[in-house]
Formats: sequence, structure tokens, C-alpha cells
Amino acid sequence: MDEGRHRRENHGGVVTKMSSFARAVPELLAGKLTPRELLERCLERIAARESEVKAFVVLNIEAARAAADAATARYRAGAPLSSVDGCPIGIKDIMDTCDLPTQMGSPAFKGWQPVYDAACVQALRQGGAVIVGKTVTTAFACGATNVTRNPHDIERTPGGSSSGSAAAVGAGMLPVALGTQTQGSVLRPAAYCGAFGFKPTHGVLPMQGVHPITLTHDHLGVIGATLDDVWRIASHISLTQGSPGYAPLDGAAEAPPAARKPLRLIRLHMQAWEAEVEPATREAFEAFIGKLKRAGIEIVDRHSNKEVGEFERALDGGYIERSIELTTYEMKWPYEQYVKKFGNLLEKRGRDRMAHAATMTPAYYASLLAGRLAMREHAHKTLAGSDGFITLTAPGPAPVARDHTGSRAYQIYATFMGIPAFSLPLLTVDRMPLGVQLIGMAGADGALAATANWLMQNLQGIS
Amino acid sequence: MDEGRHRRENHGGVVTKMSSFARAVPELLAGKLTPRELLERCLERIAARESEVKAFVVLNIEAARAAADAATARYRAGAPLSSVDGCPIGIKDIMDTCDLPTQMGSPAFKGWQPVYDAACVQALRQGGAVIVGKTVTTAFACGATNVTRNPHDIERTPGGSSSGSAAAVGAGMLPVALGTQTQGSVLRPAAYCGAFGFKPTHGVLPMQGVHPITLTHDHLGVIGATLDDVWRIASHISLTQGSPGYAPLDGAAEAPPAARKPLRLIRLHMQAWEAEVEPATREAFEAFIGKLKRAGIEIVDRHSNKEVGEFERALDGGYIERSIELTTYEMKWPYEQYVKKFGNLLEKRGRDRMAHAATMTPAYYASLLAGRLAMREHAHKTLAGSDGFITLTAPGPAPVARDHTGSRAYQIYATFMGIPAFSLPLLTVDRMPLGVQLIGMAGADGALAATANWLMQNLQGIS
Repeated sequence: MDEGRHRRENHGGVVTKMSSFARAVPELLAGKLTPRELLERCLERIAARESEVKAFVVLNIEAARAAADAATARYRAGAPLSSVDGCPIGIKDIMDTCDLPTQMGSPAFKGWQPVYDAACVQALRQGGAVIVGKTVTTAFACGATNVTRNPHDIERTPGGSSSGSAAAVGAGMLPVALGTQTQGSVLRPAAYCGAFGFKPTHGVLPMQGVHPITLTHDHLGVIGATLDDVWRIASHISLTQGSPGYAPLDGAAEAPPAARKPLRLIRLHMQAWEAEVEPATREAFEAFIGKLKRAGIEIVDRHSNKEVGEFERALDGGYIERSIELTTYEMKWPYEQYVKKFGNLLEKRGRDRMAHAATMTPAYYASLLAGRLAMREHAHKTLAGSDGFITLTAPGPAPVARDHTGSRAYQIYATFMGIPAFSLPLLTVDRMPLGVQLIGMAGADGALAATANWLMQNLQGIS
Repeated sequence: MDEGRHRRENHGGVVTKMSSFARAVPELLAGKLTPRELLERCLERIAARESEVKAFVVLNIEAARAAADAATARYRAGAPLSSVDGCPIGIKDIMDTCDLPTQMGSPAFKGWQPVYDAACVQALRQGGAVIVGKTVTTAFACGATNVTRNPHDIERTPGGSSSGSAAAVGAGMLPVALGTQTQGSVLRPAAYCGAFGFKPTHGVLPMQGVHPITLTHDHLGVIGATLDDVWRIASHISLTQGSPGYAPLDGAAEAPPAARKPLRLIRLHMQAWEAEVEPATREAFEAFIGKLKRAGIEIVDRHSNKEVGEFERALDGGYIERSIELTTYEMKWPYEQYVKKFGNLLEKRGRDRMAHAATMTPAYYASLLAGRLAMREHAHKTLAGSDGFITLTAPGPAPVARDHTGSRAYQIYATFMGIPAFSLPLLTVDRMPLGVQLIGMAGADGALAATANWLMQNLQGIS
């Protein structure tokens, strides 16, 4: 099989077909398009691609049509419920839905039916969004790959764990879908599938009713066809169902903050630059950095700035290990029960981690928590006077693989520190999409979105 | 009916019959008593009192006997699992249990069977504790009274919402039981039923798998026969299943910290002193304050100290309203769904609150959160140089009532600020038990327990 040719064909065909809800809103408001028509476009695309992409665990077509018809009536009456009324959306299958089973990507939860919707799903329904189906996740949003394939090349992984959400958006089957990120599960699949990914500041979007892995690392996130799609959905959720104990998403509003040109960005290389990044990806990212410089944006990095070097060394000095240790301790509930109850259904790695968790002391855990906060403070200190960190979303495009979902190396920083990050589909490597990652300060998601908006408006397609 | 005589008989009969696990541990370790025998004592007491007290939703007698027999074998082998091995315990019926239905005190959850144990229940089972049954809660731990009656006088409320847990301990049916406190739901029933109540610093005990009301206010707590019982259980939970994002309970250990004499305590009167406290309760509390002074402890209050006066005025200036507003906003998930799905099963008050919640803005919510943190800082500033606040747990003993569970006025301060509080059964008013409340700094639960220990060792029964 000529893989190169196969990939080329798929990639060229699919990227242009991503379907945005945000871009359709003026037509919806003008009565030139209805939510039902928008849904039918998605369903046609699902009919065309789903058999090979396998993004959905279950579709809810009749209920989605009824919801789209209700939205259609509201637009006709000039009274849409919200900025997401009529938006077709997919829900990762670790999020509770009162009308669809929630199976966690695991046979352990086969057929399990929650009593209520997760807070994020409740917010979407209250705003009139059209829930099209549950999207494939790896088991409990951890671990090995599931059935979903990359819509740009079905030999490649879509990334994980929000595999189905990213693949559905990348294939144009949905304009937007919800994901969660505990290491790299929103941004990596978004980057691999050519979509936008947004992981807000830790805690600002509600996680209630979402199966946890580890609450200090679990983030609700959004994968979508445009920056406006992901921002609109995240804002709507935040403003409709707050996250207990957290202020709402900074800058939350119907549309993303106006584009604002960054004056200074900090380029992060990290150990992965030498350890994992292939020449073609290096070349593409260097070319992108060149564009930034030609646009008059100051770029500082570990070579030009001592503080950046110190920050990279601090992060590389064991942060992944600390992150995994934190995660392991917090997974004791409920995974120790799962090991006991249906251990044979879990991966060996999961069982091994619970055996290790039993040896960790609460005092050690407390020291890890303190280290995480210190690392966030270090990031904030390093960012002072700059508009963000800029780096790759992943060390390269989606690998040809069925046994893993790609490298978490570049996504785990922002997750560990709980600071906001976007993946922007600004690179093409080996004729596959790849994301540029923009990372900012905790609680300053709006400023970061303004920078992301500027990058998309000014650098997309510019060579 | 001669109510006075009825109460007198019950009170005199029951208080002395509270059954401590902690006090039995030396006998268990010496082989003079077995966990099975301890359980049988509880079951005898349940057989004698449960028909009138109605503390349990469901008992799990055979499973409890099996668990007690397993614990008995471990003690015989000289290898108890933990400091709570063999401890009979009751679980409030908003906490998930994998082997017993969890019905939230509401017909809406009739027969509902969770997949897993809540984190707190998992910790208890892992330590070998003997789960005797689920204890009665008011519906969703809010609102009106349920079937449980005060074991000291069945005409009186046991307090709520942890009604069954407190009544079971007060009646000697269990040494200890879990509760939750969102306004006053651990400390008030503990005080009314003559038991110890402990509500640690907000967040340090895990709430996962416990049905939420409002996460910034929901606290896991313990009601028990002695200070050692409540401390031992809270410590075991914290050390076995941590609370994600929080350091473990300060001072957590098998036994409470050694008694330490307080040098200075801040007496809080609050508006409730004039508005709600009856002469008999005032007299009892003044007598208690007199004991503290005679023991050489400096007592400062709003009359003698300007800062205390300012703190009381700040707290009384709308904190209850702010607390309720915060709670209302956070209750949107999942209660907006409940109103829609089974509104006729909810109290009108709950439905009205959700209508109000829909009018609140996220920015207003954020301002309430900031106010709560500022109030905690104010408490810490006021406490500097003192060993705690001392006040009543409730404005008086359990009222004769079937339509409400008593006044939250004195419990809601510590809940709102998330700072730790004990209710110590040091008062008797109208021949009914009443608690003294000791409140400390967030994260300093161990120091507060040392003070509580001193008060119990030195002031109980002293006139």
C-alpha cells in the first residue's frame, strides 16, 4: 500500500471540509440556514465517514433531530436561547448523559445509564445545543488506543483520550465536541486531527458528572473547527453552569476576544525538541517561528534568555514524574475499587499504578501538591512581560499506530501547572496537520485567546 | 403526656450509654473483646431503640457480621488492618455504597444502587471498619425533617441533615457515623443528640461519591461517642483516601493530639445571642465560660476587644445571605435538572431557589467567592494569638418539633469560612444535651483537637 499517497489524498480532502457552527451563526440569524439543515449536513458527513473513522460510541439521531427542530423554531421566532442554540455537538463518553449510556470506553461500564447530565452537558442542553452522540474515549480516558482512526489518514492514530471528539471534528462530522485533558487528551488529538483545541485554566469549567481520573489534573476542554467554536462553547458552559469555587472563564463571551498582536512570545524547546522531534517537524516549526519574527514579534528562548533556560530545566527536571505521581495517588479512588471489582478488565499498567499508590504517603502527596503550585508560580514569573509560551502541541504529526495514541511530551506542562493552552492548527508536516501550542497564565484565558485570534488571522497560510 | 418527665427519663437513661470504639480498642488488642461482640452490642441496642428513634434507612446485618468476623480473625492473628479495624459505623445515605442502595433521603432516588463506594466509604472498608447500615438524611441533605427522632426525647428533632448518624450515636446504637455539613448538618445534630461532632477544614476529607449540594460549603464530618472516635475516623479517611488538591488532615494520627491547655479563647456572642438564645441556655453557657476563666484561660469577647467586635459585625453583616447565595448558584447542577425531572418530589423552597439561581450572574458569584475568602482571612487575623473561637453549637437544645431540624445560626459561620469546628457535649439545658463549639484556623485542625482534648479532660462534669 502506498501510504504516502493514501495520506495525501485524505488530508487534502478533509481539512477544507471542517464544519464551523460559529461561521454559520449569521446565516442562522438571517434565516438563510436552519439548525435542522446544519444537523443534516453533519449527519450526511457522518454517513460518509463514520464507518472508517469510528468516532462515535452511540448516535442519538432522532433526539438530535427533535432538538434541532426545536432550535429551528426558536430562530424562526427570532428568539434563540443562547450563543450555542442549534449547535451540533459530541460528548466524550466519560461525561454523564441522562438519555444515553455512559460507558467510559470500558467493558466495565457497558450499558451504564446515569441518572443526570454532567454539568457541562446540562449547560449545553439549557442553551439549545444539539447533542448528536457520545464520542469514543480510551478506557476511563487513560491508557491504550480505542477503535477511532485519524480522519486524515486512517492508518494513523487520532490521538487520545478524546479520540472520537477530535476525529469527528477533523472529519467535518461535527463542528465541535467536548473532551477532557489529564495529560494531553484534548490538545494532542485536536492537533493530530487538524482541529482547534482549548484547555482552559484548571477548574474554570465544571467537571461534575464527568468520570474522574485525578481532579488536580482533569480539565474539561473543547475541540472545534474554529477558534470561535471552541471559545463559544467554553464560554457558554462557564456562564451557564459555573465550576464551584472558581471564578468564571476569563473573558467569557459569545465570541472570542478581539485579535491582539503579541509583542513578545517565549519559545519553549524542552528536552523533547532533541529527544522526540523529527527533522520535518523541526523545519515546519522553525519556519513558523520565522513568520512570527518577520511579523515583528520578539521571540525569546532558552538560548537568548537565562530565565527561560532555568524554567525549562525546572520543568524538565522531573515534572512528568511528579505529575504522574500526583495522578497515581489521586486515582486511588475509585480505581482501587475497580482493580478489585473488575481487575481483569483493566490494563496491567493501571493495576501496577494502584499497587504503587498504596506505597505513597499522604505527606509525600502534600509535597507534590506544593511543588505543583511552585511550578505554576515559576511559569507566571517567567511569563511576566510576555504574551505567552509558544511551542509545539506534539513532537510530530499523528504516528502510524494502533497500539498507542502518540506522545504527551508537549501537552503535559500546561496540564500539570493548570494553566490555559490552545492548540492552533497552523502547521502541516508530512501532509498531516499539526498544532502550535500557545500557553498563558492561569486566570488570563481571555488575553491568551486574543493572542490566538491574532495568530490565526495573521499567520494562517502565510509563508 | 408529661413531656418533662418523658425527656428526663430518656436523657438520664441514654447519655451514659453511648458506646465508644476508641475506648474498646485496648480490649480488642488484648483479646478481651472481639469486633463481633462489639457489633452484637450495637445490634442489641438497635433492637432496643431503633423502632422509636428511626436512625437507619437500611441495615446490612449479615454483611456487618461477616465483616466483624473477618476483623475478629485479624485481631486474633495480632494483625488488625488499621486503627479503625472492626469499628461499627453508619454511613449517611447521600454517600455511595456499592452494596447498599443510596437513596438521598428522597423518593427521587428510591432504590438507586451506585456502582462504587464513595471515597470515604472505600477508606473505611479498606481499614476493616464494619458498615452497619445507611443512616437517615433529610432529602438531599437539605430541607425539611425526615423520620428520625431524638434519642433523648422522641418528641424532639435530632437535628439535620445528618439526623440518623447523630441519633444512632446518641442512642448508643453505633460508636460513630459519617455526616456532611453544608450549613450545620454535622455539628447541630451532634449537639442535639449529645455526641461529639467534627467538621474538619473544608476540603481535607474527600467528598467524591457523596451527593453534592454545593462544593464550596459541603464538608465531610464525623459524629461519635468520644473525641477519640471522631478523630480516629477522620484521620483514617484522610490518610487512606486523600482529597485531591488538599494536604491531609493536619495532625492526622490514630489518636487525637495530646491535650494542650488553651491560653486564650475568643468568645463569640453573635446576633443570635440576643435573637435566639433562651435564658436557660445563656445561663448554662455563662457558667461554662466561668469555668474556663477559673481554669486560668483568658477569655476575650466583643465587649473587651475591639477587633472581636469588628469581626462579629462583619460576620453578622450579611454572611448568612452570602452563604445562601453562593450555595444557590452552585446548586444549579444538578438541581435544575431535578426540578425539571421530578419537581413535584422536591420542596417548594428548592424550586424557588433554582428560579432565583437563574437570575444570578457569574460575576456576582465570583464576588461572593472573593468575599468568602476575605472573611476567612478576617477570621485568621482575629484568631492570631488565640487558641480558637468558643461559642454555642446551637442557640439551645433540640426543639420539640417535627417540621424543622433546628437553628443553623451558630453552625454556619465555620462552614461558610471552611474553618474547622468541633461540637463538644459539655452542656445540659432543660435536661437535654447541648454542645459547645470550638472553631479554629483552616489547616490547623490538629492544634484545635489538642485544645478540644484539654477541655474534655478538664471541664467535663466540673461545676
